[in-house]
Amino acid sequence: MPLPAHPKALLIDLAGVLHVGDQIIPGSVEALARLRAAGLPLLFLTNTTRTPLRTLVAKMNALGFAMQEDDLLTAPGATLNLVRSRGLHPHWVVHPDLRSEVGPDAAEPDAVVLGDAGPCFDYATLNAAFRLIQRGLPFIAMARNRTFKEEDGLSLDMGAFVAALEYSTGVTAEIAGKPAAPFFQAALDRLGVAAADTIMVGDDLRDDIGGAQALGIAGVLVRTGKYSPADESHPDIRPDAIHDDFARLAERLI
Amino acid sequence: MPLPAHPKALLIDLAGVLHVGDQIIPGSVEALARLRAAGLPLLFLTNTTRTPLRTLVAKMNALGFAMQEDDLLTAPGATLNLVRSRGLHPHWVVHPDLRSEVGPDAAEPDAVVLGDAGPCFDYATLNAAFRLIQRGLPFIAMARNRTFKEEDGLSLDMGAFVAALEYSTGVTAEIAGKPAAPFFQAALDRLGVAAADTIMVGDDLRDDIGGAQALGIAGVLVRTGKYSPADESHPDIRPDAIHDDFARLAERLI
Repeated sequence: MPLPAHPKALLIDLAGVLHVGDQIIPGSVEALARLRAAGLPLLFLTNTTRTPLRTLVAKMNALGFAMQEDDLLTAPGATLNLVRSRGLHPHWVVHPDLRSEVGPDAAEPDAVVLGDAGPCFDYATLNAAFRLIQRGLPFIAMARNRTFKEEDGLSLDMGAFVAALEYSTGVTAEIAGKPAAPFFQAALDRLGVAAADTIMVGDDLRDDIGGAQALGIAGVLVRTGKYSPADESHPDIRPDAIHDDFARLAERLI
Repeated sequence: MPLPAHPKALLIDLAGVLHVGDQIIPGSVEALARLRAAGLPLLFLTNTTRTPLRTLVAKMNALGFAMQEDDLLTAPGATLNLVRSRGLHPHWVVHPDLRSEVGPDAAEPDAVVLGDAGPCFDYATLNAAFRLIQRGLPFIAMARNRTFKEEDGLSLDMGAFVAALEYSTGVTAEIAGKPAAPFFQAALDRLGVAAADTIMVGDDLRDDIGGAQALGIAGVLVRTGKYSPADESHPDIRPDAIHDDFARLAERLI
């Protein structure tokens, strides 16, 4: 489908679109400022689940992307909403930095929730989660991204560990962040816009573009971050537009 | 298909059939001795890849199952044969105990080989393997078992980590141990018997029974080890016979 002629909102992935690790993607600070000056409503959608919201916002501000906590919709936030709305008491597999955000593990857990424990993923942690899922506890994952771009190359993202547990338990995880439809729907609700008037920009073909398109949101792929040329000939997912980077998309929109 | 009326050989899985951890499955020592006395050619087929062959044989002997190294066909042995026959110089992800068997990592690896690193699986190890496979190196795994039975319950087997790397790289691993056809063919060749005259007994529906049947070997499931009642109503894999344990199968065969 074509991009909306007069988009009323832009949903923006962070890592791989605005920055890679501690490096700004050139032109993205200025592009973001220009979009804001033009009055386009913006919301940042991130599947980053290693970092608490406050730290993430501080990091983005330090890089020069002025933003506040309310400007972000995060996979951990969506997960907490889901857990609270169902009255669950999870066993959490999360990065130590995220522990203060999710609280302690329940003594008698009734769900297993996986975040990106990153370097803290180990056999004992995964086996404990495996045994709880095996006992019949529901399995929720904050995200299932395959890879993410670090300054020294692509790295294994948390989806690998979701796949590991799914394989051995035979249970499919429920995903709270991108590409889950409720996550994108929450973004539209927050901004009060319709899918047909909205654009999502990201570097992850499946989770950003595919996820947005499933709800009727136009998906724009950027050739930065984890982008690979193979993304342009994927058999199932075709971006509504492809730009070299976020700055080029902003030029086009303004 | 029915079991061969006069079987000429029996292929036997170890963990979950003869023992679970350090516990003998009741009756299995005596059953094995009776099968040997009856003159039936036997070969043990194991996907255990945490332990060197010598240690494994010593452990089995300590449990009372008299056997020698030549009585076993192991996934690490099959992997070494495969690596040598292709002249590969792998980056090995293995348990430290297996390092002496596989040798050091190549400085310029041309393949990634995954074994069961068990408690030594961690993020850094998996991410290093991920990056090599991502660069185009072939991905070989000793096995892809989902679970194994420990004395205190089911645990995550190495297949989880194969699935993790497959998910994030998009590359399917080549399996060297069960259920790979060349592994079962090597067993038949070793004993000089035809598939139609041979029985495989195991507790893993997919890797023991399914793998054997794919070559025309009769597959007998035992209700010990990782066996689950759901195995008896699997949509695709139907054992040729099911016995409560190895001792019952031996009674039937003698």
